[in-house]
Amino acid sequence: MLNIGPYEFSSRLLLGTGKYPNFEIQKEAVEVSKTEILTFSVRRMNIFEPSQPNFLEKIDVEKYNLLPNTAGAQTAEEAVRTAKLAKASGLCDMIKVEVIGCQKTLLPDPVETLKAAEELLKEGFIVLPYTSDDVLLARRLEELGCHAIMPGASPIGSGQGIINPLNLSLIMEQSNVPVIVDAGIGTPSDAAIAMELGADGVLLNTAVSGAEDPVKMAKAMRMAIEAGRLGYEAGRIPKKRYATASSPMEGMSIS
Amino acid sequence: MLNIGPYEFSSRLLLGTGKYPNFEIQKEAVEVSKTEILTFSVRRMNIFEPSQPNFLEKIDVEKYNLLPNTAGAQTAEEAVRTAKLAKASGLCDMIKVEVIGCQKTLLPDPVETLKAAEELLKEGFIVLPYTSDDVLLARRLEELGCHAIMPGASPIGSGQGIINPLNLSLIMEQSNVPVIVDAGIGTPSDAAIAMELGADGVLLNTAVSGAEDPVKMAKAMRMAIEAGRLGYEAGRIPKKRYATASSPMEGMSIS
Amino acid sequence: MLNIGPYEFSSRLLLGTGKYPNFEIQKEAVEVSKTEILTFSVRRMNIFEPSQPNFLEKIDVEKYNLLPNTAGAQTAEEAVRTAKLAKASGLCDMIKVEVIGCQKTLLPDPVETLKAAEELLKEGFIVLPYTSDDVLLARRLEELGCHAIMPGASPIGSGQGIINPLNLSLIMEQSNVPVIVDAGIGTPSDAAIAMELGADGVLLNTAVSGAEDPVKMAKAMRMAIEAGRLGYEAGRIPKKRYATASSPMEGMSIS
Amino acid sequence: MLNIGPYEFSSRLLLGTGKYPNFEIQKEAVEVSKTEILTFSVRRMNIFEPSQPNFLEKIDVEKYNLLPNTAGAQTAEEAVRTAKLAKASGLCDMIKVEVIGCQKTLLPDPVETLKAAEELLKEGFIVLPYTSDDVLLARRLEELGCHAIMPGASPIGSGQGIINPLNLSLIMEQSNVPVIVDAGIGTPSDAAIAMELGADGVLLNTAVSGAEDPVKMAKAMRMAIEAGRLGYEAGRIPKKRYATASSPMEGMSIS
Repeated sequence: MLNIGPYEFSSRLLLGTGKYPNFEIQKEAVEVSKTEILTFSVRRMNIFEPSQPNFLEKIDVEKYNLLPNTAGAQTAEEAVRTAKLAKASGLCDMIKVEVIGCQKTLLPDPVETLKAAEELLKEGFIVLPYTSDDVLLARRLEELGCHAIMPGASPIGSGQGIINPLNLSLIMEQSNVPVIVDAGIGTPSDAAIAMELGADGVLLNTAVSGAEDPVKMAKAMRMAIEAGRLGYEAGRIPKKRYATASSPMEGMSIS
Repeated sequence: MLNIGPYEFSSRLLLGTGKYPNFEIQKEAVEVSKTEILTFSVRRMNIFEPSQPNFLEKIDVEKYNLLPNTAGAQTAEEAVRTAKLAKASGLCDMIKVEVIGCQKTLLPDPVETLKAAEELLKEGFIVLPYTSDDVLLARRLEELGCHAIMPGASPIGSGQGIINPLNLSLIMEQSNVPVIVDAGIGTPSDAAIAMELGADGVLLNTAVSGAEDPVKMAKAMRMAIEAGRLGYEAGRIPKKRYATASSPMEGMSIS
Repeated sequence: MLNIGPYEFSSRLLLGTGKYPNFEIQKEAVEVSKTEILTFSVRRMNIFEPSQPNFLEKIDVEKYNLLPNTAGAQTAEEAVRTAKLAKASGLCDMIKVEVIGCQKTLLPDPVETLKAAEELLKEGFIVLPYTSDDVLLARRLEELGCHAIMPGASPIGSGQGIINPLNLSLIMEQSNVPVIVDAGIGTPSDAAIAMELGADGVLLNTAVSGAEDPVKMAKAMRMAIEAGRLGYEAGRIPKKRYATASSPMEGMSIS
Repeated sequence: MLNIGPYEFSSRLLLGTGKYPNFEIQKEAVEVSKTEILTFSVRRMNIFEPSQPNFLEKIDVEKYNLLPNTAGAQTAEEAVRTAKLAKASGLCDMIKVEVIGCQKTLLPDPVETLKAAEELLKEGFIVLPYTSDDVLLARRLEELGCHAIMPGASPIGSGQGIINPLNLSLIMEQSNVPVIVDAGIGTPSDAAIAMELGADGVLLNTAVSGAEDPVKMAKAMRMAIEAGRLGYEAGRIPKKRYATASSPMEGMSIS
């Protein structure tokens, strides 16, 4: 079970809703993924422009917990304003804080992220900050009271997978709130690695929406995340330099 | 579908039967894994000593395709003799050729493996050789007529996972018979990586039997292999150095 | 040439002075390394306790630029106080800001590091902060006016080498001040990789002082850093999936 | 010292002579590299066509030990014929056996390589076979009497560096003759890694001749190989998950 704030989820996959070929494919991918948390950019949502097409149209909003993000914000102030807009829609009380410090790498700005998180926590939001894998920054965010920590595996949409498993696992080790690996995942094995490290969940978007077959990839990711979690729980064999026979021969003879 | 010789399998997981804590756990792990191919050491099987306990007792042999291996053989001659013993039992016509050249690493001897494969092919066996990830050696084995190629990911039981994804993928690229990654897998993500590279299957033993919870790990592996295969088919996003927004902001405004 | 503040150095190796087997070996390692910058913990220096043995005794201080660090500080305030103590000795005007946020990982605290750097810059120090490889944090430190950025390769003394070459190279790409890779280096090749990524220098301590033969390792590191720099300047061949003949055969015949 | 057959070398860098921008640059790179062993393709050498330009013209042949290779050979027979041609020139008694099994990957054919090595050893050559990193194949080659083993790091000219450090180090561990890492090196750090693993030497060509500045890269490689060797001899610190203070604070106070 994944617990974030007052919510409890069976699925450990959080799915983004950006850049699918079309809403039909998006809808199907969402269903196949069995996600319970949909994340989307408040700025892209057209909540307040009902005349525009909207990804929510095709989706039964009741079935999902919505996690709006503040993508596009470059300062804490912008992030806070965006978060409040999202809440005003009445659709959600969780917010993924995303304050980008660099348009080329889309990596988060640590100072503004801390500020935004602090402010939004005061306002009563359930706050999930997107952050780098800086271990002490993650600790700071947790100390502020954030409800989950969302360190990136590699730059958003880069598909580079998990570059720094050490930092991610140090964050998981120290955290008392869920750690959700967010950004950079490219393949099912990337997602499985995150879970095997001890992540509580994985947030995906481009890896699914940008795949040649998004629906099939959504299914692959769902299974990989579950497999990785089971693998984590099952306790892997240790790594050894040399071999260990799987078929021990001691005392066996053949004639 | 995985096709080996005349056989067709829905599962891409081949499971070894060595070193489980006990036969009950082994039985459950085998069932949960949904494998259709069980591999075991002929020398360990006690086929011919019915008074001894035998892993086959607990398992409904009719449900599985048995893939005996020649573990323990250090020469082609020993491997051939072992294979014939297995066939004589009437239980199987497939053989995993395993001719070990070094007791510390349990890595295969290329020359004896080629010899054994050639001989057993002449004798009408369905031959699956365990081999290193030497690309040209794999090609030689295929040219001999082997029915599948089984390159190791890393030493048997070492849990080091896939050390050389390049060689494995070059073997997959050149092969017209199934390529089954055999040996060295430690985690579900390792198995998923093998499948994402394009493997037709994965053979596991210690990663499951040696896990703290073999049954849970068997399930994890089943899902990871399926996830990896789906991911391979779904077509991953390309890796990029820089980021790509999942929530494009072009032409969006917020006030 | 490595330029830090008003100083110019031919060597790109910064060497720490902690934990050598004895002062003789330390002295020899320092000489062989050809470093021009020695770093040391102010707290360990015994500057103010002349009765205690001191690494400076054996070393001709005139030949080196001293870079004291604030190791042991857990807050900006402590770091600032330590830096001032160092300056009061009259030996140095550079300071390596090191504010540790966690005693197990010795990873730096981003918020206190920023604060300490800001304060020390105001006080007129030449400031070189030890930081994580968080790209935007590095940018913040540069924007404050820091004279160099010192991102860690992996935890201090861990010998894990460069875990995240992407982040390090993104920091190098964005920086207009020297980037010196600090902490985590274990081997000459680790140091060479840092330089090949485009680092302006490498700071080492445990990799040398903790080696079986610190003097030999000091020499190895000196050469590796120079080799890596030359390699960076020389422009490496691109990586390719397939081979390229080094001995092209076109139009050649042999009879 | 590197000992191959009756020869003793101070340099551990073996340099190829293919594909330099021109003979002047080649000459300078060779000198700067301080190599003592030059390798070249017999087929490209124009030994027997004195009217053609020849890399040997610019080079003082007396200063180097020549290591011709059999590049272009696809069978043992071709390799043997090429080797004999080289010997007939009176310039050399060493031969690098290179029997390529695949034109796309230029990976060696294990069976033909074994055959060629065996035959050339009988003929009294000093035999250095280029081989894959198959551990048992390397052992077979040593058992035949080869004077050195030359496993590839990755495909020739690919610049992928060392893909499988485990296999290389297992080969080094088992070998009583020099192990020279051959093919695939891209950067000085790649060469240093090979040496740190325990290699006796590194053979380079494209990494130098194809660099933007081959002369500078030749120098970088020379230093990296020496650095890597020194690092190997100096005994690296162990890798640890957590940090170890380089500036221990026990019992220290600051006021």
